This record gives sequence, structure tokens and C-alpha cells, in this order.
Amino acid sequence: MEQDTITAISTPIGEGAIAIVRISGEESFAIANRIFPTKDLAKVDSHTIHYGSLVDPKTDEKVEEVMVSVMKAPRTFTREDIIEINCHGGMVSVNRVLQLILREGARLAEPGEFTKRAFLNGRIDLSQAEAVMDLIRSKTDKAMSQALNQMDGRLSNLIRSLRQQLIETVAHVEVNIDYPEYDDVEEMTHQMLVERGTAVKEEIQRLLLTAKQGKILREGIATAIIGKPNVGKSSLLNILAQENKAIVTDIPGTTRDVVEEYVNVRGVPLRLIDTAGIRETEDIVERIGVERSRKALQDADLILLVLNGNEPFTKEDAALFEAAKEHDIIAVINKTDLEQRIDLAEVRAVAGDVPIISTSLVEEKGIDQLETAIAETFFEGELDSGDLTYVSNVRHIQLLEQSEQALDEALQAVEDGMPLDLVQIDITRTWELLGEIIGDNVHESLIDQLFSQFCLGK
Amino acid sequence: MEQDTITAISTPIGEGAIAIVRISGEESFAIANRIFPTKDLAKVDSHTIHYGSLVDPKTDEKVEEVMVSVMKAPRTFTREDIIEINCHGGMVSVNRVLQLILREGARLAEPGEFTKRAFLNGRIDLSQAEAVMDLIRSKTDKAMSQALNQMDGRLSNLIRSLRQQLIETVAHVEVNIDYPEYDDVEEMTHQMLVERGTAVKEEIQRLLLTAKQGKILREGIATAIIGKPNVGKSSLLNILAQENKAIVTDIPGTTRDVVEEYVNVRGVPLRLIDTAGIRETEDIVERIGVERSRKALQDADLILLVLNGNEPFTKEDAALFEAAKEHDIIAVINKTDLEQRIDLAEVRAVAGDVPIISTSLVEEKGIDQLETAIAETFFEGELDSGDLTYVSNVRHIQLLEQSEQALDEALQAVEDGMPLDLVQIDITRTWELLGEIIGDNVHESLIDQLFSQFCLGK
Repeated sequence: MEQDTITAISTPIGEGAIAIVRISGEESFAIANRIFPTKDLAKVDSHTIHYGSLVDPKTDEKVEEVMVSVMKAPRTFTREDIIEINCHGGMVSVNRVLQLILREGARLAEPGEFTKRAFLNGRIDLSQAEAVMDLIRSKTDKAMSQALNQMDGRLSNLIRSLRQQLIETVAHVEVNIDYPEYDDVEEMTHQMLVERGTAVKEEIQRLLLTAKQGKILREGIATAIIGKPNVGKSSLLNILAQENKAIVTDIPGTTRDVVEEYVNVRGVPLRLIDTAGIRETEDIVERIGVERSRKALQDADLILLVLNGNEPFTKEDAALFEAAKEHDIIAVINKTDLEQRIDLAEVRAVAGDVPIISTSLVEEKGIDQLETAIAETFFEGELDSGDLTYVSNVRHIQLLEQSEQALDEALQAVEDGMPLDLVQIDITRTWELLGEIIGDNVHESLIDQLFSQFCLGK
Repeated sequence: MEQDTITAISTPIGEGAIAIVRISGEESFAIANRIFPTKDLAKVDSHTIHYGSLVDPKTDEKVEEVMVSVMKAPRTFTREDIIEINCHGGMVSVNRVLQLILREGARLAEPGEFTKRAFLNGRIDLSQAEAVMDLIRSKTDKAMSQALNQMDGRLSNLIRSLRQQLIETVAHVEVNIDYPEYDDVEEMTHQMLVERGTAVKEEIQRLLLTAKQGKILREGIATAIIGKPNVGKSSLLNILAQENKAIVTDIPGTTRDVVEEYVNVRGVPLRLIDTAGIRETEDIVERIGVERSRKALQDADLILLVLNGNEPFTKEDAALFEAAKEHDIIAVINKTDLEQRIDLAEVRAVAGDVPIISTSLVEEKGIDQLETAIAETFFEGELDSGDLTYVSNVRHIQLLEQSEQALDEALQAVEDGMPLDLVQIDITRTWELLGEIIGDNVHESLIDQLFSQFCLGK
């Protein structure tokens, strides 16, 4: 295993009070000692912090005023010696420190390489490593809890237990084959295979059932608000954003000019698409109108289709239902505070099974019913991510589906009375596929590819 | 002095491997202990790091996996107890940790409040505090060195020494007035006042002389490249950017779609204005042409005015010289590789004293001469920020100018034979003005205003 010493900036790029440059590997302390003359960092206690100056050994020029954290292997994130240099958070400062460390012999880390080392050195398994990135990228509170659970090894433990059951089953078959003392050994073995195989299969299916919700928890429900001009799209957007605390954007000091907004409706995270478009179009006359709506809804899981109750149902409205028909739709008949000129029967005829909610966004009426409809569209009753293990990672979902299929083939083979060694091949294949989730038997290229999606410095 | 406990996110906002939430004040350890059950942080050694989970005490739910740094007063940045929580660098993660700390009783810090406390608690003076922000904001290597020097107290020491000289002078005058034993005491006192006052004045003037260069080191020379379409503006931009390592933008992983670029020409930092405009206009036909150039040069200190040597000098070219006449100009006659159709005498007649450099950007000829011309326009010979104390802060420059004026008035009063106590008033005023640079006798409102320009978490 390569053990060269790597370095990277581990904090986001930008102006901030503090930035961290991280070094990991055998040479960490030696490199740090060459540029931090204050004291011998190899001799201090692990997990201690030291104040001093970084000095360029070539020019004896002071490069920065820093705090250096010393963490000795193996009690570290990578299980290697780690130095973390906290310097001032400007672009030049951080870059200067990084360049100095690179010049003193460290290699610039690839994205995700610190976490990759944690995996390669056995500190975490693959699904835990993936959770690290999910956690950083998480856009909602529930997504983060889910990532934390996975990082704690909840999914890993479940997968390990399923693999254990499979390996025991295979072992049992071996024993039965080797010691065929009894007449009914074949029948007994078949029965055991069916029982145990089915049990594992049910667990896999249960996990796969969480995938849709897991994906929603992780990414939010992509939601588009569409409708003709002046039906109340931006009012709806504003009410959803105000009533439901925006999850991500309430960090003081961050700007809000984002095209997507996250809102939390009864624990369901909605990712509102093209909110800038909605706000803009109602401000400056709706030039782009329906065409723009069409585009926004391509990427949406949920469509909030807003109609004006004060006007008759038009061909344009019907066209929107038609355009959105592949998606989950909730129809919102707005402006109930005004005279109702819309023909509800006409709407129902076009809308089919789609839930229809009446609102007066001006008077803030009907919002509760709308929120209930949203929650019910995606979850039976209340959502609680605390107790469940969700799968949300596409790679995991694919492997689980392949495992289920391999197991199906094993069970079918048993039913068809195929030789047991053929059945064993399918079960072993299931065991291997499940192993790939936690990183057993995975190709190096896959590992490289997975970690390359990480951000720099992690 | 208020001593409540403050907290803020101290790393830039964005996706990164690590983020830091900082807590400072008397309650730091108590708050941290309530959410970090792993161990009693009040009892561990100072400057140590502790791994564990943050737990919401209300729900017993795990909030994050963190590293907690414990630093005990007074050996800290603020001279108060400090806790730094290193968590995963996602928006949700950081926000969750911050919200938990706020709920447990810390107050959200104002921008710059940590540094303000370092100042109020006597760890650094005002010019050092200002240097902290300069350092974070610095866009060039030299600007950072300058800020580091100021942070180390180089300017403060110089100012203190001048103030000491003034106070000694005043004391001396007092003694002379109180013990007028000698006949020539008045003449002696006058002579001493003139000598010492002049010495201090010369030092102040010397400092003020560095102001222009200091400002350039700090901010870079705002440079606009102007010229008619197809004279080679974008080639010049590209050559300057390639030949001279861009200072800020070479951090791996950062994007480069900036409207300004920093390049380092012989140690002179150039801030190239509207580079996007230059690149864009030559790509998509120069629609906006001269008009756009006019706008760009409003903000520029230096104009690189590019002419096409392959074409006759036109009225348009002359108009550009006229438009730029308030600025430092360097004329670049490009395309010397082609037949020369420009009348040099004509150019010289319009250009006046402006340096004229001939280049072939295609063949990369003449670049050296251009760079020399740039360096000579702003600095006599080579620039070395290492040995000099520069002033670059507008507030400092104003105070130095006022000090010089007050001292002038004192010297004039001596010359006019005014009573010594009147002279003393002016000298004391000078002493006070210099004191404001390092933060003696400054109004609370000024302090508030200064620190409010800081970034959050510093």
C-alpha cells in the first residue's frame, strides 16, 4: 500500500477567519518540523495544539502565524500521522502554506484521498466512507441524520448480518453434502435453503423499499410550481418558504440568491426548482410563461399546478396537466377569496386522481390541507428517519437489486431441483454483491472512481 | 467589559471537508460539556484535542461526529476560554452544530468580535487587529507579507517610538518651564522643540511616502487593457496571465471565472480589470468596443493602451489617449511581426511622455521591455517589501497626515514665538492622533465600526 505523505486544504475556499491545511502520512511530522521551528512536533503528545510561526526554511522568512494540531497514528482519521495547520482564512494565506508544504515533499492529495486512506487502512468500510461525503453534501437535516447513521455503521452492520446468514447457509449445505447419513438429507437441505434464502431476500426487499424515501430524504423532493401568469405561483413559493423554515439557507451571513430553495413540509424536504424563475417571471411580466414551466417540470418529482379559481378553466390549464402527467401532481385552486368562476367538474375531469386543494394564498387559507397532501403523496403518515435504516445511495440500491436477483435465481434453482453446487454459486454471488456495498471484493478502479467524487481535503 | 460567551462559524461557508465552529467566553467549557458528553472538557489540559460525538441534550440524539479543541484562558486568541469544534464541512452539519451551541446559551458573534475581544483584552493593538483582516483579504503575496509585518507589531512599534519621543519632549519642556534657572532656557527649549519635532515629522513623512506603494502592494495596481478591436488585447492579457504566475487563482479546485485577475509583474501586483470583458469582446465581435473600454478605465490606475502597428494610427486611437490622459499610460504597439504601417512620429505626438513599447505578442517579443516599463512606472528599481514598514490602511494614512499637520502647527508656533503651553497642546494632539492608529484613546463607536468590517467568525 502506498504510504507517501499527502496534503490538501480541508476547508472551503473563500474568505473566512480560519482555514485548515491537512497533512497525512509518514513524513507529516518531519515536514511540519522543517517549517515550524517553534518546537519538535514529533516529540509532543498526540492530540495537542501548538502556537507558532511557519517559516520558509529557504529564506527564513515568516510565512504565517499558525496553530498546529498534532495527531499521531493510529488514533487518527486516516490511521496515519496527521498534522493540521490552522492558518488565517484568506486565499493567499492558505495557498502560501499549502505551497510550502508541497515544496517540502508532500504530494497534493486527490479528492477524497484522506477518506480513502481511512478505508484502505481499515478504519471505516466503504459504505461508511460514502456516508462521509453524503454528510458533507447533505442539504436537509434528515439527510444528515441518515448519513450519520450510515457513518456509524448501521447499514454496514445490517449487510454484515445478511452476509453472515448466507455464509452459514452455504456452510450448512456443505456439511449436509459431506455427511449424507440421512435419507432425507436432500429434502432437508432444500427446505433450509428456501427458508434461509427467503429470510435474507425479505430483508433485502425491505431495505429496497426504503430506497425511494431514502432518496427523498437525501435529495429532497424536486418540486416545481407551475401555472399560468398571475395565478399565485410566487405567493405559493413565498408562503412555503416562510411557513416552513428554510433548512439550509438560514446560516447568518450567507446569501440567498439561489435558484433552488429547500423547505421542510411536515418533515418532507422539498427542493423547489427554479425559484428564481418563478420570482422573476411574475415580477417582469411573464414573457416566457408556459414554455418555461414546461422546462422546469422535466426535472421535477412533484408538480404543484396552480389554477385561478376566479377564472374559468382554460385550454392552457389543461395543457399543463397534460405536460405534467408523468409526475406526481397536486392541483391548487387558488383565490378562493374571490368569486369562483372555475368549473370544478371540468377540473376534475382533466385532473383524474390528482388531489385538488383549494387555497386563498392572500388570506393564507388552505395551506394546511396542501401540506398534508404533499406529505401523504410521499409518505404514509408521519415520517421518522430515526429508527429506520434507509438506503439512498444509487450504488447500494443497484447492488441490493442485483443481490435480490441472484438470490431469486438460487431459490428458483432449488425449486427446479438443480444440483446444490449450482445453487451455492448463486448464493455465493449474492454474498459477494452484498460485500461490495461495504467494500469487500471491490475493484481498485471502482474505489478510485468512488473517492474521486469527494471534495478536496477530505 | 462585557464577558458573555460568543460563537460563530469560523471557516468559509461552502462544501469542504472540515468546518470550525468557535466559542469564546466564560461559559465556553460549560456549554461544550452539555453537548459533548465524552469527557469533562473543563478538566482536560489546555491546547488538547478530543474526539467524540455531539449530542443534543434534549433528545439524546447524536448531532455530529467532531473533534473538539480546548484552549484555556489566557493563552488564547481572545484571552478567554476558547472551544473550537471541528465538524464535517457541509452546510447542514455546521448549521446544526451552531444552532445547538446557540440554544445552549452562547450568543452569535458579530463580525470581527473575536478579534475585537483580543483587542479589548489587550492581546493586540488596533493596527494589529486591522492587519488580521488585511491578511485574510490579501490578494497578493506581498500584501500578505505586509499584513504579517503589521500583525507582528512592526508599525505599532514604530508609532510607539514616535509617541515616546513626543512625550519625552513635552516632559522636557515641563522641566524647563518649572526650573527656569538658566537665562537661555527659552532659547534652549525652542531649539530642542524644533529638533525633536522635526525628527518626528520626518519619520511621519517617510511613512507617508510608503503609502502609495503600500496601497499598491495591498490592492494591486488596477490595470485596464484598452484598444480598438483586434489589436491584441486578449493576447496581451493571456501572455501577462501566463508568464506571470497568477497569484490567487492557482489553488487547485478553484474556479477561474473571475472578472478580475491578479498577475505579478516583477514583484508588482497588477489587478487586471474586466478581463472577462476583454476575453468576451474579442470572441463575439466587438459590439461594445471603445465605449466599454472607456468604462473600464475609469477605475484604473494604469492603462495599457494597445495599438496595431500593422495599421495607420487613427482618430479612434487618439481618442483613447485622450480618454486615458488622467492615468498612467503605457502604449503598446503590437504586431511588429507584420508590415509596419503606423506612423511612430504621429503616435509620439499624441502620446507625449508616455512610454511606448513595441511588441509582437504572437511571437512573444517585447514582453520583457513591457514588464520593465510597468515596474518602472510604479517603483524605482526593484521592489522589496521585506525591509520596509509600509502604511496602506486609509485610516492610518489619514491619521498620519493629521499628525503631520498638528506637528507642523506646533513647529510654526515655536517659530512664531508662541507661549510654550500652546505649543504643548499641538504636540499632545499629535501624540493623541498617533495613538489612534494603535487604538489608544479611540471612540467606542470607531472600534465598533472597524470590527464590523471583519468577516464572521474572526
